Amino acid sequence: MNRRLVIALLSAVAATPAATAQTPAAAATAPIVEDFKPSSLNQPGQEFPQVNSQGYVRFKIKAPEADAVKVSLGLGGRGGTTLAKQADGTWTGTTEGPLDEGFHYYHLTVDGGTFNDPGSLNFYGSTRWESGIEIPAHDQDFYALKDVPHGHVQQVLFPSPSTGTSRRAFVYTPPGYDKNQSTRYPVLYLQHGWGEDETAWSNQGHANLIMDNLIAAGKTRPFIIVMTYGMTNDIRPGQPGGLAAFNIKPFQTVLLDELVPYVDSHFRTLSDQKHRAMAGLSMGGFETKLIAPNHLDKFSHIGLLSGGTFSLDDVTKTAGFKDKVKLVFVSFGSRELERGMRTPPGVPPSDPRKNAQDLKQAGYPSVFYVSPNTGHEFQTWRRSLYQMAPLLFRD
Amino acid sequence: MNRRLVIALLSAVAATPAATAQTPAAAATAPIVEDFKPSSLNQPGQEFPQVNSQGYVRFKIKAPEADAVKVSLGLGGRGGTTLAKQADGTWTGTTEGPLDEGFHYYHLTVDGGTFNDPGSLNFYGSTRWESGIEIPAHDQDFYALKDVPHGHVQQVLFPSPSTGTSRRAFVYTPPGYDKNQSTRYPVLYLQHGWGEDETAWSNQGHANLIMDNLIAAGKTRPFIIVMTYGMTNDIRPGQPGGLAAFNIKPFQTVLLDELVPYVDSHFRTLSDQKHRAMAGLSMGGFETKLIAPNHLDKFSHIGLLSGGTFSLDDVTKTAGFKDKVKLVFVSFGSRELERGMRTPPGVPPSDPRKNAQDLKQAGYPSVFYVSPNTGHEFQTWRRSLYQMAPLLFRD
Repeated sequence: MNRRLVIALLSAVAATPAATAQTPAAAATAPIVEDFKPSSLNQPGQEFPQVNSQGYVRFKIKAPEADAVKVSLGLGGRGGTTLAKQADGTWTGTTEGPLDEGFHYYHLTVDGGTFNDPGSLNFYGSTRWESGIEIPAHDQDFYALKDVPHGHVQQVLFPSPSTGTSRRAFVYTPPGYDKNQSTRYPVLYLQHGWGEDETAWSNQGHANLIMDNLIAAGKTRPFIIVMTYGMTNDIRPGQPGGLAAFNIKPFQTVLLDELVPYVDSHFRTLSDQKHRAMAGLSMGGFETKLIAPNHLDKFSHIGLLSGGTFSLDDVTKTAGFKDKVKLVFVSFGSRELERGMRTPPGVPPSDPRKNAQDLKQAGYPSVFYVSPNTGHEFQTWRRSLYQMAPLLFRD
Repeated sequence: MNRRLVIALLSAVAATPAATAQTPAAAATAPIVEDFKPSSLNQPGQEFPQVNSQGYVRFKIKAPEADAVKVSLGLGGRGGTTLAKQADGTWTGTTEGPLDEGFHYYHLTVDGGTFNDPGSLNFYGSTRWESGIEIPAHDQDFYALKDVPHGHVQQVLFPSPSTGTSRRAFVYTPPGYDKNQSTRYPVLYLQHGWGEDETAWSNQGHANLIMDNLIAAGKTRPFIIVMTYGMTNDIRPGQPGGLAAFNIKPFQTVLLDELVPYVDSHFRTLSDQKHRAMAGLSMGGFETKLIAPNHLDKFSHIGLLSGGTFSLDDVTKTAGFKDKVKLVFVSFGSRELERGMRTPPGVPPSDPRKNAQDLKQAGYPSVFYVSPNTGHEFQTWRRSLYQMAPLLFRD
């Protein structure tokens, strides 16, 4: 495997497990506004956790006999928030500062054990179902559930001889798919990140709502999105072999030899190269970079969302890249760029913005997007999809 | 609302919140066999909880500083299992006896607070996401994930003017639906029980796998199943008004005026009365009984799964029942019948078996099914669907 790719893989995946809130640009000096409301991701009827208009989160956990209750979400995503016991047997507390806009995973530590908040819904991340909270974003309209025609998200179980089982994928079909029985659609294969699964792009990412809204506004061509499980390698930082032992082969086989043919035979797809894209977030971006450029007979549009970059060297040495690739979309959250890309000692950091500019100057269809005031989290990737979708399949 | 219906509603819904294991027929006298394996419903990579070949469950929870950890699942579904603290900071324990075959909800009590088991997957029941455990059943083959063609389960968001939002439903389309573009299919509207939601029939019930397997074996006609949220009333036992205040109108409006037209316009359905069925479990059965017989221009097949019965009086006073209804399917778990139907003081218990026989003798297409050694739980309903599906839409 290409050393450059290993390095990029290391740098971005290492950031994933700590996918909690980043230090906000605005310091937590303003007084807390007491307009807390139940989080939109609470379980039905649950009053807590609550979020205020500044992005502070207040927690309330019932555990009358506990000695200590802590929440993993805190200012800067580290340290967490220690809750204080109240006379009524609940534990309450508010984050030390506001969290970044968008979705954050979190969990509780109750007397030394890891549990989810019984008040909130769970989302698969960090290889477990975690509690989730949503900080209303100034731009949340683009992924809101609105009164527009909605596409469907289909759970499919496709045969996978290489893994000896039926594997699950989710397939977004755009509004009109059921009625326009003679229309065929392009397909985007869209991958989740490390520790997540095929539910992430719908549950955390609202990929379906983003598409519904873009299509209703006439801003994108309707296309199909296919999301499947990409953790065919058991990649955990610190494990023997670690990320350097990453082998794309098992997932590539599932994707190219099993899933793509299933989708092309069960959905009304446009199955030629120019109507097939691949993109992914974090680890899913690295999978995309490992698979798509090496299969340019199959993919014409490539997206890396917080998942590495393409240098001029990458693309010039890839046969056919200039002719066959119609979009190279690379994006990051601004806080990821502030921190810089982490690379091993002795290796110069790769500047993704400069890489994108180099490609553009050399005549490649390079688009670079930075999500303002977000880190290695889903708000970055929602926005990235929103930016990328209109650029796909512009015949 | 019909008094008889209110009584039936009371009797079965009252049983739902305690939807945990029933006292097994075999007393827990045999020694525990040490062949425990991780539950099939564990989160990826989690070793606990474990289940042995007899149906005992063993729990292991890490909470080193806790003072007491208890599991809601116990012998007879009551009392639960108290875990004992180990030297390594974990709490372990085994149920006092084997649990019934099939799926059970449960939760933990950690120092007086209610939490889910971090080892297992969650399922929506009792109006919250609960931990779930699966006791392998002797007949589990009929809902196993097998190497057969699989249908798709589609999440749809349909417009609902009556509730002012887009509502969610899941739609099972059988294998071949995508390829046989000229074929139209009958539709079963299938409702969940109290405290559950539209995810239950797929997640807990494996309705899709039951259908895939039945279709692969040539045992049922392929049809579409539609599952949506039926808790449009906020029904909680003990609440002001309680179940007697149950009003079917809001759900009926969503179902008949909004969902059925959406499904008929977005899927290739056979939209006439003889190709539309309604069934439900527990509260969903009562909803079925309140809606379907009063709309025999729309429904021809009716199923009540642990959700009431039809007496001869019920059907003779319903205009058109004899001509228009092609199946009256009523089922229960054997343990529900052992305990008898609970009715308010002064009201004689209604015997569902006798009711079914009365209907049959009077020439109605009445089928009665009892799931052996199961209670008011999903194994009863999985088996009921398996029994009912082949009887539907036999033109």
